[in-house]
Amino acid sequence: MKEITIIIAGPRGNMGMEAVKLTEQTEHFKLLAVVDTKNEGKRLSELDGMPNLDIPIYTDIEKCFTEQQPDVLIDLTSPESGRVHLEAAIDHGVRPVIGTTGFSQEDIERLRAKAEDKEIGAIIAPNFAIGAILMMKFAQTAARYMPDVEILEMHHDKKLDAPSGTAHKTAQLIAEVREAKKQGHPQETEDLPGARGAELDGMRIHSIRLPGLVAHQEVLFGGPGQTLTIRHDSINRASFMPGVRLSVEAVLTLNTLVYGLEHIIE
Amino acid sequence: MKEITIIIAGPRGNMGMEAVKLTEQTEHFKLLAVVDTKNEGKRLSELDGMPNLDIPIYTDIEKCFTEQQPDVLIDLTSPESGRVHLEAAIDHGVRPVIGTTGFSQEDIERLRAKAEDKEIGAIIAPNFAIGAILMMKFAQTAARYMPDVEILEMHHDKKLDAPSGTAHKTAQLIAEVREAKKQGHPQETEDLPGARGAELDGMRIHSIRLPGLVAHQEVLFGGPGQTLTIRHDSINRASFMPGVRLSVEAVLTLNTLVYGLEHIIE
Amino acid sequence: MKEITIIIAGPRGNMGMEAVKLTEQTEHFKLLAVVDTKNEGKRLSELDGMPNLDIPIYTDIEKCFTEQQPDVLIDLTSPESGRVHLEAAIDHGVRPVIGTTGFSQEDIERLRAKAEDKEIGAIIAPNFAIGAILMMKFAQTAARYMPDVEILEMHHDKKLDAPSGTAHKTAQLIAEVREAKKQGHPQETEDLPGARGAELDGMRIHSIRLPGLVAHQEVLFGGPGQTLTIRHDSINRASFMPGVRLSVEAVLTLNTLVYGLEHIIE
Amino acid sequence: MKEITIIIAGPRGNMGMEAVKLTEQTEHFKLLAVVDTKNEGKRLSELDGMPNLDIPIYTDIEKCFTEQQPDVLIDLTSPESGRVHLEAAIDHGVRPVIGTTGFSQEDIERLRAKAEDKEIGAIIAPNFAIGAILMMKFAQTAARYMPDVEILEMHHDKKLDAPSGTAHKTAQLIAEVREAKKQGHPQETEDLPGARGAELDGMRIHSIRLPGLVAHQEVLFGGPGQTLTIRHDSINRASFMPGVRLSVEAVLTLNTLVYGLEHIIE
Repeated sequence: MKEITIIIAGPRGNMGMEAVKLTEQTEHFKLLAVVDTKNEGKRLSELDGMPNLDIPIYTDIEKCFTEQQPDVLIDLTSPESGRVHLEAAIDHGVRPVIGTTGFSQEDIERLRAKAEDKEIGAIIAPNFAIGAILMMKFAQTAARYMPDVEILEMHHDKKLDAPSGTAHKTAQLIAEVREAKKQGHPQETEDLPGARGAELDGMRIHSIRLPGLVAHQEVLFGGPGQTLTIRHDSINRASFMPGVRLSVEAVLTLNTLVYGLEHIIE
Repeated sequence: MKEITIIIAGPRGNMGMEAVKLTEQTEHFKLLAVVDTKNEGKRLSELDGMPNLDIPIYTDIEKCFTEQQPDVLIDLTSPESGRVHLEAAIDHGVRPVIGTTGFSQEDIERLRAKAEDKEIGAIIAPNFAIGAILMMKFAQTAARYMPDVEILEMHHDKKLDAPSGTAHKTAQLIAEVREAKKQGHPQETEDLPGARGAELDGMRIHSIRLPGLVAHQEVLFGGPGQTLTIRHDSINRASFMPGVRLSVEAVLTLNTLVYGLEHIIE
Repeated sequence: MKEITIIIAGPRGNMGMEAVKLTEQTEHFKLLAVVDTKNEGKRLSELDGMPNLDIPIYTDIEKCFTEQQPDVLIDLTSPESGRVHLEAAIDHGVRPVIGTTGFSQEDIERLRAKAEDKEIGAIIAPNFAIGAILMMKFAQTAARYMPDVEILEMHHDKKLDAPSGTAHKTAQLIAEVREAKKQGHPQETEDLPGARGAELDGMRIHSIRLPGLVAHQEVLFGGPGQTLTIRHDSINRASFMPGVRLSVEAVLTLNTLVYGLEHIIE
Repeated sequence: MKEITIIIAGPRGNMGMEAVKLTEQTEHFKLLAVVDTKNEGKRLSELDGMPNLDIPIYTDIEKCFTEQQPDVLIDLTSPESGRVHLEAAIDHGVRPVIGTTGFSQEDIERLRAKAEDKEIGAIIAPNFAIGAILMMKFAQTAARYMPDVEILEMHHDKKLDAPSGTAHKTAQLIAEVREAKKQGHPQETEDLPGARGAELDGMRIHSIRLPGLVAHQEVLFGGPGQTLTIRHDSINRASFMPGVRLSVEAVLTLNTLVYGLEHIIE
């Protein structure tokens, strides 16, 4: 396979470290340099917990792009930096793969116009876990044929919000394709409030929180005589890397901006 | 094995029919007669859907016991009849296995005294499904060592109440052995009300309702780095029969009244 | 919705009875007559267990089509009859929905040519359970992105063959899209033979057989840090009816023969 | 609660590090010193990755016991060292909790006699994961009432042996209480060899291996109309610590040697 040259922004975060590992383990990926918030002038091999790669660290992305000319930027920083880095990349003809959230619909449209203007690919992926993307995609398809559905999401008990963002997004994707439908028996009652879970567009969502869990979701469809279950279990950040790899390969073939991995799958 | 002679009250109900089948399929069980609300003077073989058994049908249980002297009465009628039949059985030295609910704590104590006075065994079983009894027993034991627990119960969407009686009972059994404990993060919030389910003694209970489900329950325990799941799936009334059989055999060895199959297991 | 007139062949079988019920419960479906192997000249309402429908029973499908002119034939008979009925239907301009198996690749091609020649739709569906079709479709898609997969199929303990037909078919669908890959550790060993299950194209298939199970399958995909599970549970023949309904509606819009519900879904 | 003074042998291994953390996080546990294979004369706080505890490191366990007089020894070393440390502890009146395997039946009997002679408690635990112990205990009980059972064990794809040690042990515990019984249909056949899994005493065991899995086991019981599932999921070594804590507390109340945590539970 043809070599792809890469810059990683945010190499010291959890996902950044995994991404550095990914470039090492993938034969046709070549890491040229990293962009960090500090450590200007050092070499990557000098940082704690980093592999022994004698490549430069930049704090100025413009300078980095000028000196390095990579094919692809993998950005795993913050929403603020991610936005700046995405534009800088397009300006320099570098194809960005951005793993941060916080882009508005307007941002996305403006940046897509810019990418199309430059005839360059760009990917923004709020979630790189391919298994989770597939789960949501399949759930949306199944809801067309089996409109009765409940979502169970299970997380560690340090999580503050319920339901999870993934459960919310799954429910919205389902709501796009099925007629709104209040589920359960019309006269059903709760002897203990909350038993039937949260309601979104007539669907029910249940949030389980226990130590020993990490991040899991089950989408359960029922019809006469049958049920269909789609479940994703994620136990660590390594689950994001196949999605990063797929994005790096796909961004080279695009000439527009794609928001969400679901649009480059299948 | 020594033959056990049996009377069944309520032979035309769903469970009654299964019980008649059970006596036919169990070599050392012999069905002598049935007690029904009608059909006095007919033979069982004359009723629709019944096996070809030439045995009498009684509407008067006293007359039945006087003429037949069985070892055991299996009662699958209503709470009202069950109570009357239980006392009649003890009076006639017949050991009752009663599959109805609705006995108060006082009823149970009075009837137990009566059974002990007559030195005769009696069993009242609100639930004959051995798998469900084992699930509840195991859940109670596990809660001593893994106090973080959530209950998920799943039923068909014709069910009116939530949570189910079995979920309630499981939570109560757990509450008996663990210190009350509010689970989840102290600052957790619900973006959609009900997401975290119902609360009972700090535990969370979630009720799922979908077509294609029958009667299922999962008790999920979490601790650092591990989870333990105990699940029971019941798809039809046949699930009650092993518990009826066990009760018939156990009641012959008792000389008191036992309430709940969990007390004759292990 | 526009009324669709229907003939059912095989009304006394398990699936045939469900199909009769389906036509009764679906407002725009109208059952005109049934084709049976006996009972010529009787009315459907005269048969045991059938609804009170005063419609004719035919044993000769040619005569039936000549007298009735339905839109659609639903055939739930045997492979032999299904083949004859399919051709007769096309000849009479009736759109067939055939729920039997046993068609060779040549049969299918010849019949497709015939349907296209007549510009008429036809559907052969070896499996009407929409949940199972979705499971297989999703499994094939997932295998492109997560090539490590094992199949667990669970059935009642009266089943004679292992693995099940559905597991076989799922594995073949996956094999079509992924490079053959021997899974597990290259040096793995079995201390007890058979522990690692059956092998098909490097995938592993496990067949569980227990009383209390009906028909279930789980397709389990694994990648670094994550797993994706797709599971179908079927507990009775009612699970086939949504697929029959979908087929009846879809066959009216086709002008070729389609083999397998997966091709009319999505 | 009364303070318990503790020595840990093997502090630099995965489990040893978790045990050091456990003593820090448990209010009434006090770590006095550690026994290591090197680092004699250093303080624990000088070792990489260790908490800032100013306590001594010994390489000679006799010297350690002479100078420190702890209540309990937690040993997480090797089978060879574990055996030596167990005897040394009993000789010095220190109660040992040994987390290694490799003791023969004769070893255990000899060491039990020694512990009883000294009237001192001792625990050897081949597995500290309480969830796994509970799973095995519950499986053994359930098998008395629901004798049809299959075991599914699921591990990462770096595992070499199949079935797992836990699956073997579970099957043996079940075999102790149920009559040997060949499961499945007597005429069942395998179209693909291995589909029905491994056989042990008529039970079936299935070993799944996939990336993304860690260590999981499901014991599935079936009876007419119902199934009961007991499942344990373990995702990291933290799962062993509640069992270590329970053992430290229990060993103080024993005056014999106990082999296996299952004997101090319930």
